[in-house]
Amino acid sequence: MAEVKLFGAWASAFSIRIEMALKLKGVEYEYIEEDLNNKSPLLLKYNPVYKKIPVLAHNGKPIAESLVILEYIDETWEGPTLLPKDPYERAQARFWAKFLDEKCLPAMWKACWSTGEEQEKAKEEAIELLGFLDNEIKGKKFSGGDSIGLVYIVGNFVGYWFGIIAEVVGLEIVTHDKFPNFCKWINEYNSCSFVKEYLPPKDKLTARFKAWFEASHASK
Amino acid sequence: MAEVKLFGAWASAFSIRIEMALKLKGVEYEYIEEDLNNKSPLLLKYNPVYKKIPVLAHNGKPIAESLVILEYIDETWEGPTLLPKDPYERAQARFWAKFLDEKCLPAMWKACWSTGEEQEKAKEEAIELLGFLDNEIKGKKFSGGDSIGLVYIVGNFVGYWFGIIAEVVGLEIVTHDKFPNFCKWINEYNSCSFVKEYLPPKDKLTARFKAWFEASHASK
Repeated sequence: MAEVKLFGAWASAFSIRIEMALKLKGVEYEYIEEDLNNKSPLLLKYNPVYKKIPVLAHNGKPIAESLVILEYIDETWEGPTLLPKDPYERAQARFWAKFLDEKCLPAMWKACWSTGEEQEKAKEEAIELLGFLDNEIKGKKFSGGDSIGLVYIVGNFVGYWFGIIAEVVGLEIVTHDKFPNFCKWINEYNSCSFVKEYLPPKDKLTARFKAWFEASHASK
Repeated sequence: MAEVKLFGAWASAFSIRIEMALKLKGVEYEYIEEDLNNKSPLLLKYNPVYKKIPVLAHNGKPIAESLVILEYIDETWEGPTLLPKDPYERAQARFWAKFLDEKCLPAMWKACWSTGEEQEKAKEEAIELLGFLDNEIKGKKFSGGDSIGLVYIVGNFVGYWFGIIAEVVGLEIVTHDKFPNFCKWINEYNSCSFVKEYLPPKDKLTARFKAWFEASHASK
């Protein structure tokens, strides 16, 4: 049997993406929880460039960067596909996954964790990006594959993590009157059985981010 | 015949990537040069999120973001492949293409165009990243597909543009004693007939970036 190891961290949306994909495909794997303050020598050997989780090692061969790993999983194992078959639809899925990762996620993260002028700028940017998402999601599945596709998996931060963190830090930018389609999508996302089953429980994530928030305030 | 249109800018490495791929595959296309100071309504309609070139329109259906377009081209047209067949090698090609695009290119661009402390920081970062590249390239083709693969095409900025811009602005960070493998690769890159034939001539690019450099100094 092929040996599959995942080096991850339970509270990381990037790490959970890989677990979502492996579970969807029915791939058995060994999960290694990394201490992000004291990363293991094997993780650093496997990902010397970024020194980050997640890393997937398949028969001892490592792959880093969650979007790259997701495509690898889709190409390597059978089961429900993460990317559609049609090249144009594949391009659209890749475009939105990249957009979520490179634009939305950094702006939304910064809007939550920064302060003052930097936070105001990040909020403005996040609101603009949410406008694009709201428009794109309108009347669509916004999944990027079968029912749980690439975009759905990569969307775990905006669909699940962001709401939890925003509540912890008291940030209110996602309102139903401004982003009705996005809010509808989030509701669907959170009531999906796959998400409920495989994502970390809300109370556990809330406690983790509350601890971060309190620590960041205590140090100011 | 399928209608293929490329909205680009002749001096942009991102735009030329798409031309390299289309030419490699033998795809006929109409090229539309965009004025980046006054972008066409069609470009803005096709890429409302980023409002950037390149955009490929295939039978009126637009695709943005050069890495996404390159995968689309590889999946849509026959001819030499941009990505290898083996899933692990594909993942490696995607990893390095992403690394070139998201890490090297911004740091190298900033090292050229910023000043003072910001420039020093960018130079340091670029040197660290070049170290990873130098190590990776050692004894390898660093192409990511057939002879001219994805990594080779995405590498057009570090392999061609960067040397030209660095000379214009008087930046010397790529030296043979520090990065012997990278320098060897650059020499090979620049003497490749495909590169010679399809990349904008050095003197034309030099003149463009010299004009930028002088304009940026005049405005200070």
